[in-house]
Amino acid sequence: MYTHELPCKEGAFPKLIDLPTRKNLKGKNFSAVIYVHYQSSEKMSEIPKLTHPRIKDGWFREISDDYFPGQAMMLRVEEILLAEKSEFQDILVFKSTDYGNVLVLDGIIQVTERDEFAYQEMITHLPMFSHPNPKRILVIGGGDGGVLREVVKHPSVESATLVEIDSTIIDLSRKYLPSMSSALDHPKVKICIQDGFKFLEEASEKFDVIITDSSDPEGPAEAFFQENYFHLLKSALTPDGIVISQASENIWLKIANLKKLKDICQKVFTQVKYSYCTIPTYTSGQLGLMVCTDSSEIELTTPSRRVSRKEESELFRYYNAEIHTQSFVLPTWAEKVING
Amino acid sequence: MYTHELPCKEGAFPKLIDLPTRKNLKGKNFSAVIYVHYQSSEKMSEIPKLTHPRIKDGWFREISDDYFPGQAMMLRVEEILLAEKSEFQDILVFKSTDYGNVLVLDGIIQVTERDEFAYQEMITHLPMFSHPNPKRILVIGGGDGGVLREVVKHPSVESATLVEIDSTIIDLSRKYLPSMSSALDHPKVKICIQDGFKFLEEASEKFDVIITDSSDPEGPAEAFFQENYFHLLKSALTPDGIVISQASENIWLKIANLKKLKDICQKVFTQVKYSYCTIPTYTSGQLGLMVCTDSSEIELTTPSRRVSRKEESELFRYYNAEIHTQSFVLPTWAEKVING
Repeated sequence: MYTHELPCKEGAFPKLIDLPTRKNLKGKNFSAVIYVHYQSSEKMSEIPKLTHPRIKDGWFREISDDYFPGQAMMLRVEEILLAEKSEFQDILVFKSTDYGNVLVLDGIIQVTERDEFAYQEMITHLPMFSHPNPKRILVIGGGDGGVLREVVKHPSVESATLVEIDSTIIDLSRKYLPSMSSALDHPKVKICIQDGFKFLEEASEKFDVIITDSSDPEGPAEAFFQENYFHLLKSALTPDGIVISQASENIWLKIANLKKLKDICQKVFTQVKYSYCTIPTYTSGQLGLMVCTDSSEIELTTPSRRVSRKEESELFRYYNAEIHTQSFVLPTWAEKVING
Repeated sequence: MYTHELPCKEGAFPKLIDLPTRKNLKGKNFSAVIYVHYQSSEKMSEIPKLTHPRIKDGWFREISDDYFPGQAMMLRVEEILLAEKSEFQDILVFKSTDYGNVLVLDGIIQVTERDEFAYQEMITHLPMFSHPNPKRILVIGGGDGGVLREVVKHPSVESATLVEIDSTIIDLSRKYLPSMSSALDHPKVKICIQDGFKFLEEASEKFDVIITDSSDPEGPAEAFFQENYFHLLKSALTPDGIVISQASENIWLKIANLKKLKDICQKVFTQVKYSYCTIPTYTSGQLGLMVCTDSSEIELTTPSRRVSRKEESELFRYYNAEIHTQSFVLPTWAEKVING
């Protein structure tokens, strides 16, 4: 393939292009297909600014041999807003052309403004609506505030405690993700800048719902996917309490890891169910959630409370009572592996 | 992107190419990047491995401003197996590192060996299991044979007719997608190399289930998304017949187009329902399906027949009776737009 860059000005498009002959094609019969990729000069001038190891040709490329070998999401970048290393992780925030602002930690997309609601609503409302009367809520991770925004929609909530190890996330969310961070200042919310593991070890308070909204297992969140962590969660839970954790994987990605995580949870809790939400900017278009409880009264796959259809539709963009139940139904091969 | 085909003969490479101006670019400053894809008359033999306008740094990049602006899937390429232009479309087949062989038409991923079953099973078994006794089946498009492979799993089927406009697809599927093309030689299968539109106009036979397994609306499949086509489908259908079409879009992509397609179908059929399958290599991780019938006896969202759990699990990797119903349940915002 030969690439030829052709500058054009003031709408004058040259009708004729000079194409040098390729040496190795001399004396042979061949044809050529010419692809012309138009780019306005306004955009071309922006491209040199988009200099970042994970951005190429104006596209953020989520390449990771560890997490998703052989496949990658690309998002077109309009502007880099923040690129720095915090004490705990590598942080990139950019404005995308079509997904709003995007938060990337250690190279992995965490949140885009356009689709974050799918994940935030499902990880929050699955346990919140399964519980008959959730009053005291704990969120571990989730410094962007998205889960808190959903938690405080429930009038039963008396307190919502956020435990985030990296205060940088909270600061950047206030600045670049205003639609997510609004509840960080809610009167029912308490924020602790602390390691979630340590918080649980020291906690005397008990919670009705605990939500682990962590990043993925490699990096600072590694401990959140191990048995010891689920024991700690259990010890911080009321007898009828519910725990939910993002499962890092989904059925299309590394399904064996989901089975492994479910087995770990089943060593600790009597009821463990796998659910998922669809979300286009997480790899393969969905993310798994693991929901656990020791209560025999609670049916995790069915809401124990309902709001009116009208209120439901005003409060939530993704969650509804039908999708609560639907989200536990799996394709046959995945059902066999995870629940077989 | 504008594509210009340039024929060359006897090694004489034209130095000047005539490029028509794009109307919508008139009066604007822009530049253009021109990719020249040389093709010797011996086809790919001259082209260095992994050299293709849509492959860069060893990755296939599914970039399309028309279909999915600002986002793109990448798949890592192990080997290009076929790159040619058929009478109807631009064809690329490559071996990916993690998704098996991949078929790309006009730059859009059509099938990967790893996840094709999700789509093939859902577009086939939703109508097949909603129908009480499907005997005569018509598949329009689907030259890869994947839908046929699923259709002939139903013992009630007496004949399955495939109407594919591009015989190249059938040939390449036999060669590169053996797990999909096996049923092309099934004794119940008839293959017609013909435009689906013309086939329907001339058809005297009536079908119990018609499946439109087309490519996307731009290109040869454009007519498959217009009202006239659904009238033709209806005229080729038994009174209790069911029609299903791939909807090209999904709720995350261009949801307004789904509503538009549903409105078109509702002008023709009394029952129209939107369903979807999750599939990682289609944009945003899912693909919409539009199911239609005029029968008041048929409940599209519930299977009218069931096979035993054991048989279900042996026959299908994705489809099961629960997921049949689940696939019609939508997140709140999508429900409002499509069914509101």
